[in-house]
Amino acid sequence: MQILVSEVGPRDGLQSIKRSMPTEVKHRWIRALAESGLQEIEVASFVPPKLLPQMADAAEVVREAVKIPNLTVLALAPNLRGVQDAVAAGAHKVTLPVSASHAHSLSNIRMTCEEAVAQVGHICRFRDGLPAEKRPKIEVGIATAFGCTIQGAVDEDWAIRMAVMVAEQGADSVGLSDSVGYANPAQIKRMYKRLIAELGPKAGGAHLHNTRGQGLANVVAALDAGITTFDASQGGIGGCPYAPGATGNIVTEDLVFLLESMGLDTGIDIEKLVAARRFLAEGLPGEPVYGFVPDAGLPKNFRPARAIA
Amino acid sequence: MQILVSEVGPRDGLQSIKRSMPTEVKHRWIRALAESGLQEIEVASFVPPKLLPQMADAAEVVREAVKIPNLTVLALAPNLRGVQDAVAAGAHKVTLPVSASHAHSLSNIRMTCEEAVAQVGHICRFRDGLPAEKRPKIEVGIATAFGCTIQGAVDEDWAIRMAVMVAEQGADSVGLSDSVGYANPAQIKRMYKRLIAELGPKAGGAHLHNTRGQGLANVVAALDAGITTFDASQGGIGGCPYAPGATGNIVTEDLVFLLESMGLDTGIDIEKLVAARRFLAEGLPGEPVYGFVPDAGLPKNFRPARAIA
Repeated sequence: MQILVSEVGPRDGLQSIKRSMPTEVKHRWIRALAESGLQEIEVASFVPPKLLPQMADAAEVVREAVKIPNLTVLALAPNLRGVQDAVAAGAHKVTLPVSASHAHSLSNIRMTCEEAVAQVGHICRFRDGLPAEKRPKIEVGIATAFGCTIQGAVDEDWAIRMAVMVAEQGADSVGLSDSVGYANPAQIKRMYKRLIAELGPKAGGAHLHNTRGQGLANVVAALDAGITTFDASQGGIGGCPYAPGATGNIVTEDLVFLLESMGLDTGIDIEKLVAARRFLAEGLPGEPVYGFVPDAGLPKNFRPARAIA
Repeated sequence: MQILVSEVGPRDGLQSIKRSMPTEVKHRWIRALAESGLQEIEVASFVPPKLLPQMADAAEVVREAVKIPNLTVLALAPNLRGVQDAVAAGAHKVTLPVSASHAHSLSNIRMTCEEAVAQVGHICRFRDGLPAEKRPKIEVGIATAFGCTIQGAVDEDWAIRMAVMVAEQGADSVGLSDSVGYANPAQIKRMYKRLIAELGPKAGGAHLHNTRGQGLANVVAALDAGITTFDASQGGIGGCPYAPGATGNIVTEDLVFLLESMGLDTGIDIEKLVAARRFLAEGLPGEPVYGFVPDAGLPKNFRPARAIA
């Protein structure tokens, strides 16, 4: 079976770090990630540079990334203006932030949940009016779908209802995000099964965090539910870590090792992937990175999925 | 459903650390672990003090631990002499080291796999001759059942065959150990299903390592296969970590959080468990400890399994 690993480090990772990675290092990092076999990378966020100076070069980064063969280039955009900029730069897919937690939605994008759903509709209609060759796919991950640091529990029926409404507005794929590392494997399996049952081919991927060390355990449960796309970030950067040693995003290197050792083909060469960490060290010297596989190395006589098949 | 978490820190953890924890701190640490709700603790190893000075106080530690109400006290013993000492101290269960890797067996206990199986038989016959009230349970975890750093891959049929032979020699329970962090969830599910099919009620627990960050992912797979006993160590100490940041044993705190958040009752109070880390700091100042949950804290409005049921 093939699994798509979607690298979010250059966007989700870098925007969580105060310093900015030089644009030229971003270009080389993204190229090295793609050359390791990653087929999809979220490279930038089209937000006002005043809010996120780390993403001020978003257009330039997207324009460079789309030159890489066989790579799907994603960009995040919080509103129509951002989507227009992402489209102008040539992004293949645009991710829109929508949250299932009312409190988080207001604090993150200053919109109610319902307003965020309506905005997805406006953006999809804008997208539908573009010439076919410029039309990006619209992807939504329902943030705080498994709980929220502000409001605590999030109703599961409501989170699924949000996913359905967003799909009805025209999004091409809708996933669920454990933005704060609250999810457990039982909940993950239950919720992704419902998502797939409700959305069919529009059911998107899993964006899971490792804040409480449960990231890969949740991946196993999501695989069991039928999910085949997983977000992760190199070195586990980003995803709002709020305690030393507590990473945010799941670590791409560890995820790829998990999948490949299970015989699930990612198309990614783990050694080349680990080698791409050098650009993190070059562009953000001293920035902490996480991950067990880069430290421990591969098992003796390790065989990736393609070698087993 | 009830899950048994078996704490191995005072044995597996402490014997991997060069310094010795003072006996009196061991007593207080073990008591605090038991008071958090842990029902089974491996507290010592009966090996010659010349080999493992950290375990020189094994008899004293066992004699103190068996005073704690409702606690099953385990000790490891590599041979009949060690078992006799463990029995004299009053251990409720004795763990015997047996490895599925020929190379590891020779290097670890200087016996072939077949000799180790035969020794289990001798020890079980010695145990059977004891008066009923002194008779310990004999437990074996088949080490390197999922691969070995010396010989690489370990044949799965052979590992299961080893478990069957050990059970036939009279061991009360036989589990499988991923001693080096090589296992993946697909293999875990396959192997534990076979173990349960072959051994029935003698199928033991899972001793999993987190060397490559896959520990809890493997727990999810083992739960799926029907395993209900898991080893772990507080702070992830021990289990031969051989790279900075790469822990050995899975972290008890993170495991208990995983299980409780899935609605699986461990009987353990996570906050009391985390508080017991203070004895590690007291007895081994500066020793690195691992774990995500102690850093990140519990989710807002977190409810343990008993509160959900």
